[in-house]
Amino acid sequence: MNILIFIVLKSVCSRAMASKTPVGFIGLGNMGNPMAKNLVKHGYPVIAYDVFPEACKEFQDLGAQVTDSPADVAERADRIITMLPSSPNTIDVYTGANGILKKVKKGSLLIDSSTIDPAVSKELAKAVEKMGAVFMDAPVSGGIGAARAGNLTFMVGGVEQEFDAAKELLTCMGSNVIYCGEVGTGQAAKICNNMLLAISMIGTAEAMNLGIRLGLDPKLLAKILNMSSGRCWSSDTYNPVPGVMEGVPSANNYQGGFGATLMAKDLGLAQISATNTKTPVPLGSQAHQIYRMMCAKGYALKDFSAVFQFLREEETL
Amino acid sequence: MNILIFIVLKSVCSRAMASKTPVGFIGLGNMGNPMAKNLVKHGYPVIAYDVFPEACKEFQDLGAQVTDSPADVAERADRIITMLPSSPNTIDVYTGANGILKKVKKGSLLIDSSTIDPAVSKELAKAVEKMGAVFMDAPVSGGIGAARAGNLTFMVGGVEQEFDAAKELLTCMGSNVIYCGEVGTGQAAKICNNMLLAISMIGTAEAMNLGIRLGLDPKLLAKILNMSSGRCWSSDTYNPVPGVMEGVPSANNYQGGFGATLMAKDLGLAQISATNTKTPVPLGSQAHQIYRMMCAKGYALKDFSAVFQFLREEETL
Amino acid sequence: MNILIFIVLKSVCSRAMASKTPVGFIGLGNMGNPMAKNLVKHGYPVIAYDVFPEACKEFQDLGAQVTDSPADVAERADRIITMLPSSPNTIDVYTGANGILKKVKKGSLLIDSSTIDPAVSKELAKAVEKMGAVFMDAPVSGGIGAARAGNLTFMVGGVEQEFDAAKELLTCMGSNVIYCGEVGTGQAAKICNNMLLAISMIGTAEAMNLGIRLGLDPKLLAKILNMSSGRCWSSDTYNPVPGVMEGVPSANNYQGGFGATLMAKDLGLAQISATNTKTPVPLGSQAHQIYRMMCAKGYALKDFSAVFQFLREEETL
Amino acid sequence: MNILIFIVLKSVCSRAMASKTPVGFIGLGNMGNPMAKNLVKHGYPVIAYDVFPEACKEFQDLGAQVTDSPADVAERADRIITMLPSSPNTIDVYTGANGILKKVKKGSLLIDSSTIDPAVSKELAKAVEKMGAVFMDAPVSGGIGAARAGNLTFMVGGVEQEFDAAKELLTCMGSNVIYCGEVGTGQAAKICNNMLLAISMIGTAEAMNLGIRLGLDPKLLAKILNMSSGRCWSSDTYNPVPGVMEGVPSANNYQGGFGATLMAKDLGLAQISATNTKTPVPLGSQAHQIYRMMCAKGYALKDFSAVFQFLREEETL
Repeated sequence: MNILIFIVLKSVCSRAMASKTPVGFIGLGNMGNPMAKNLVKHGYPVIAYDVFPEACKEFQDLGAQVTDSPADVAERADRIITMLPSSPNTIDVYTGANGILKKVKKGSLLIDSSTIDPAVSKELAKAVEKMGAVFMDAPVSGGIGAARAGNLTFMVGGVEQEFDAAKELLTCMGSNVIYCGEVGTGQAAKICNNMLLAISMIGTAEAMNLGIRLGLDPKLLAKILNMSSGRCWSSDTYNPVPGVMEGVPSANNYQGGFGATLMAKDLGLAQISATNTKTPVPLGSQAHQIYRMMCAKGYALKDFSAVFQFLREEETL
Repeated sequence: MNILIFIVLKSVCSRAMASKTPVGFIGLGNMGNPMAKNLVKHGYPVIAYDVFPEACKEFQDLGAQVTDSPADVAERADRIITMLPSSPNTIDVYTGANGILKKVKKGSLLIDSSTIDPAVSKELAKAVEKMGAVFMDAPVSGGIGAARAGNLTFMVGGVEQEFDAAKELLTCMGSNVIYCGEVGTGQAAKICNNMLLAISMIGTAEAMNLGIRLGLDPKLLAKILNMSSGRCWSSDTYNPVPGVMEGVPSANNYQGGFGATLMAKDLGLAQISATNTKTPVPLGSQAHQIYRMMCAKGYALKDFSAVFQFLREEETL
Repeated sequence: MNILIFIVLKSVCSRAMASKTPVGFIGLGNMGNPMAKNLVKHGYPVIAYDVFPEACKEFQDLGAQVTDSPADVAERADRIITMLPSSPNTIDVYTGANGILKKVKKGSLLIDSSTIDPAVSKELAKAVEKMGAVFMDAPVSGGIGAARAGNLTFMVGGVEQEFDAAKELLTCMGSNVIYCGEVGTGQAAKICNNMLLAISMIGTAEAMNLGIRLGLDPKLLAKILNMSSGRCWSSDTYNPVPGVMEGVPSANNYQGGFGATLMAKDLGLAQISATNTKTPVPLGSQAHQIYRMMCAKGYALKDFSAVFQFLREEETL
Repeated sequence: MNILIFIVLKSVCSRAMASKTPVGFIGLGNMGNPMAKNLVKHGYPVIAYDVFPEACKEFQDLGAQVTDSPADVAERADRIITMLPSSPNTIDVYTGANGILKKVKKGSLLIDSSTIDPAVSKELAKAVEKMGAVFMDAPVSGGIGAARAGNLTFMVGGVEQEFDAAKELLTCMGSNVIYCGEVGTGQAAKICNNMLLAISMIGTAEAMNLGIRLGLDPKLLAKILNMSSGRCWSSDTYNPVPGVMEGVPSANNYQGGFGATLMAKDLGLAQISATNTKTPVPLGSQAHQIYRMMCAKGYALKDFSAVFQFLREEETL
């Protein structure tokens, strides 16, 4: 972006800011922090809350209003985005003693970008609807880098008429905003994708490991898979074998990326959804267990592609 | 191909035929038949053998010499291609009472395109080498259609200096001939690819099934997976859910394609190789069991993408 | 028991009846019905409720008071037993609009014999405690036959001081009443047992099936396993192979017994508990998926030992 | 045994020795050594061979004849026992350049106590039969301790008329000699038992681990399982949780016992047999993979009950 355009944009933003109504943001952690900053950059006055007060301080300096509880946010803003680590946290922020629902205004738009059980999203939607407000689930794909760059993907579930209103805000934080269907389908899309991702990552690790032990060169094997029916994102874009690709966690001792513990969490959600809907997911279930075992064996903080390393080590006999 | 080019080609072939030395072909089944025909089309005099005499008849009409045993083929041709259904058949054709090795000439080139245990390929290579001849494994990827069209992929293992000689013949039958390394690595590449294929196919079936039960539209879910990290050949090229894609077995009641029983066979080979090399393949192993259960439940002859159907059916309660 | 003792006992019961305070019983289904009858037989005046009024009628004839809601039961009895099919039903009976907690008296003893998620038991215990009452979980082992005969096993979780009071009632319905620890541990013991049961049943089915295909006589194989380290309840008491034992479901086309769909439910609870506590359960998880697939393939109502039949059928090729 | 009886026994043995014909013994490793010694103790002149000459030395001191090859053994003894670590070793000892079959006498009885693929046993039996001799497979259950004490269990496959002749020798080394059926069924019985053992051991470890995390006391949980349908040899005789039982490997940091690497080997044989007979073994297959992963993570030499430790460790997050 050259400077001229930047100035023009900035003035556009400043002008826009004057007319924009505030947006609440609850949950300013690793992901929520850069997401909320992108809202500020796009000129939205932000009403912030986080359970850890220090997480809010930075936003105070950016001109955001900091509040004492989710209820306070709901009192001051009629559009709120929540970004929380788990189902229980999310339930608490919405329905707790100082939760959003205590003071939510009629007609408010509440967008939850946390990754949680879709059944919980549906429960929350019902509770929100009773208060005359609207709930949408909008979990994200893409990590901290994408959150900073503003090119997350949002998978959105909820009443279709409200999608445009949600999209207006989400576009400030993501480059891809997909409408998935009724409430809960945003979560559903995300956990289905991540379950398939985990399965094909472990499958890629197994196939590469087996091929190497049978005498194949890893780069050559990756090339063959990628031009054949074994091709997948884990083999052609994020190969788990050190030395095959550059710029991926396997090239950097499995640092950065998407931690095994986060993958285990998403697979746990997939498992719960599958159990509730009586859907057989034999490999998804096994993938969950493998990431669980990895977490128990010291791989919790490594990128999820470290499953190659977990499976590879030589027997001592 | 228009007629003119066809005539020119034909005359080229005729000319070539005059100078070409014969090629033996053993195993004229579903795959071997069209492969051998492509050799004939390219002007190679073919010396044919199959355990079922009727399989040879067609080749007699095409001008091929038909023989009584693999040994007879070895007596009359110093380049031989074998295409057989399993390890024991292949061992028998090479080392049996009337096997190739009984009369193989020094310097002969023996190319095995069967899909078998790479450890067996290595054993055969040793036995062939003792007779002063050369063995290469060259299993194929692609089904009967690709065999007819002459655009199979060959994955070739063996001494590198002999690769060009092998390639000359294999190019008549395939559009892609890849050198993989020492003897056995052709098999290794194929079974690693097919193991990963089975895993990602089952994973795709699970993810699509779970998503549908959670309220997602199948076409939309496929689109989301294909633009995300869940993308794989099974989701974007061969989707197992009826109605998502056209021209794939799932659009045709899972007829045609690559049968579940063949996939179970290849996964059995992967399992044996993994056991022999002490390589953990938890999902590959589970995929093997799932195709085994499918075969036991009436899916043996359906395309392997029918795993979606196997997992989908509703509980009766 | 000879007649004299019986008469003496009967008169003891009659005397006792006069002085016994009423016991509430909520959930008069397949299991609850014979359990409540055993309370009546032991002289307890029963205050009954079931969501299906016809389920209560029989109890009216037996002299029980029938009420209109769980709240009504709580108004009239300070000891209540609940026996319900799932977590949501149980939550509703306790915390719903006409639930027990609406009218529970201080000091009441509430015993839940449903098999549910132990985390739900803990939540209910907290809610009950807030009302000044006591909650214990006491799921049962043993089927309808044991319920009728009054020899169920109860696994009881809750405050230890209250165990004797609970045991007084449970002894009328079961021959074995085991104190397991704090609230939720009754459920925990049950789901751990049933998870191990499912695993060893499937394992027995696999081992028997493999042995038979390798040429062993099933009775001989069962005998060898039962005198060796493969011995388990599924091999020596409930063998899944027809013809090996008499008086078990495998001798009766897998009718009766413990249905596959019930096993799938318990394995789902084990899975949820394992996910919540981040415990790896690779075989428990796979057992869950196998019962899920069985239910999807028409085995929902057969005894869970029918997994032998599910795995056994011959391939068609 | 008091001294008097010992002297009497010794004199019986000495007398018997005079009339007993020699027995060959090939493979004097951890298991073969004490087994062969028990033959000596029972008065059989032993003709010994091992690929490591030092393994024979001890037997020379005991009065055994030591030979240079399996062929030499076959020349001097018409009853031979083989105890070798794997299928390839066994094939070599029978059919190699200096193998038994080079000099086996007509009517000889060859008993193989190695644990190998039953398909290999059948192949060897055919080759032996061609030479006019008899082959039986007789793998053992019980470890080094049982081998020393002479109370191994032998599972014997082969022609029934020869069973008594085999039993005469095997009774010197084992307290339990079971006839299983045709050749290969001894191996089949052993691998089926060990597959079920591995499954129920992992299941026990999972159930105990889950129960402990849900708040149950390990000893109490073991007691409950052992009086319920979860009962198995792994829970009641060889419990994998430290502190639950005494005198088992879990009480001794998983030292001694049956190593994970040996279990992985037997599960590999079960897997190969299942693949060859197209038998679905979903849990057996997963058990194999779990022991494979354990071996890759440093548990190769620990007792196989250490799977509890493998699964138990806490996540670092």
